[in-house]
Amino acid sequence: MGKASTIAVVAPGRALDASLVPLVQARAEAAGAELIMHPQCFAEDGHFAGSDSERLDALHQVMADERVDAVWFARGGYGAGRIAEAAMAALPEAARTKTYLGYSDAGFLLAALHKVGCDVAHGPMPQDGAREGGEAALDRALAWLVRRDEATLEPGLTRGVPAMAFNLTVLSHLVGTPMVPDLAGVDLLIEDVGEYLYATDRALLHVTGQESVRGVAQLRHGRFSDVPENDIPFGRGLEAMIKGWCERSGIRHGGSADIGHDAANKIVPFGPRGG
Amino acid sequence: MGKASTIAVVAPGRALDASLVPLVQARAEAAGAELIMHPQCFAEDGHFAGSDSERLDALHQVMADERVDAVWFARGGYGAGRIAEAAMAALPEAARTKTYLGYSDAGFLLAALHKVGCDVAHGPMPQDGAREGGEAALDRALAWLVRRDEATLEPGLTRGVPAMAFNLTVLSHLVGTPMVPDLAGVDLLIEDVGEYLYATDRALLHVTGQESVRGVAQLRHGRFSDVPENDIPFGRGLEAMIKGWCERSGIRHGGSADIGHDAANKIVPFGPRGG
Repeated sequence: MGKASTIAVVAPGRALDASLVPLVQARAEAAGAELIMHPQCFAEDGHFAGSDSERLDALHQVMADERVDAVWFARGGYGAGRIAEAAMAALPEAARTKTYLGYSDAGFLLAALHKVGCDVAHGPMPQDGAREGGEAALDRALAWLVRRDEATLEPGLTRGVPAMAFNLTVLSHLVGTPMVPDLAGVDLLIEDVGEYLYATDRALLHVTGQESVRGVAQLRHGRFSDVPENDIPFGRGLEAMIKGWCERSGIRHGGSADIGHDAANKIVPFGPRGG
Repeated sequence: MGKASTIAVVAPGRALDASLVPLVQARAEAAGAELIMHPQCFAEDGHFAGSDSERLDALHQVMADERVDAVWFARGGYGAGRIAEAAMAALPEAARTKTYLGYSDAGFLLAALHKVGCDVAHGPMPQDGAREGGEAALDRALAWLVRRDEATLEPGLTRGVPAMAFNLTVLSHLVGTPMVPDLAGVDLLIEDVGEYLYATDRALLHVTGQESVRGVAQLRHGRFSDVPENDIPFGRGLEAMIKGWCERSGIRHGGSADIGHDAANKIVPFGPRGG
């Protein structure tokens, strides 16, 4: 997949904060890219950036647009999973020559598009411009899309070994559906945000209980941030929890990973990297 | 499976409030049952009613006890899923002649024990004594366990058609694991509590995306209570959401069901009822 000079932004989940546009445009310009903000990024339909059909139509438009080198998902928040199966079912030919970047809820689309052979990567999104230090996150995403800058990559990735990264809650809702790619032999990286420890334990129970996940090469944990206080302390830390589920399910635990819902979130391209 | 005169209570998830014991004992006595409160019900280990091994040992003890006719799960709250696979793997012979009753997080055990041929039912638990009108819930559970009173049954159940009932979030974490029973041809009832609408939509996406679930005879929805306010209104009601996912996934929507996290929660025995 080529380096990107034209990047289209669409919002498969929630709407992008319009106030971030000047910053995102400026960083794209600094990186030498032309950024096309699809107006659907600012649509509103209850929780979502427009209805399912509006979001799917916008995605299809940019996937089919031959001028577009990369599709950058604007924001997470839930919604991509409602259109991912339809997006992979009717794939415009031009869709296969692009790179797709996002994380969190956009993981539904990363999974589905990777499954049908598209080039996808887990990494920062335009909405991350709102974070403390978010400009660095935008620059990292753009450096990957525009220059394939290897300094942006999650440092534990191994050349030639396929990797995937997901929000754990999203992965927990992907497994067993038609959207999930083959996980066999993959270095699987997980992260999460805003989940109670008991909910994370339950998601790990579910995910590590799947035959498909038991076939990964190893599991590495990114950051699990903004964990709410339980009404009674859960009594077990996150790392012990993850190691415990790996041990139970016969999955190798490969240590920590530099991904998460924060400005430091590094890039994880799906599949094996050549070179 | 016989009517129960001796009922053992264990807590596979969170601890039972000890203050409820006099009420639960009094209702059991009024129903003509001897209630054995396993001391593990009041154990504490962080979130859980004792460590995994304490909870599993207590469950194994009452499953193996030939004096015990029924095992009544004390409370939900998360934890049963951590011991359910082990519970089904080493099934004492006497376990097969008992009835198991509970709901919410105890659904992990209902699934696993039903899968290995035990008689299980979805219905109120001792902790429900703490609810407004909770005495009626206790009496309903006991009337099922002690007398097989058909007036306690969820009114839409059809004789001869197998049924199952689950908390949707629990079902969403069960599918694809070794704990989940065959759902083909089953009337599937779901309910939930305390989940954001977007989280319920995501759980429905996941559950209705499973081939195994697409084989149910129909899906009926119980009550979804204590739904927290989203930061922006979700823009779609619960019934439309459930019907929408049924339509997408080719599952028949069978209307509402009289189950939920409340005192009115009716009994749903798993599998076909004879007679």
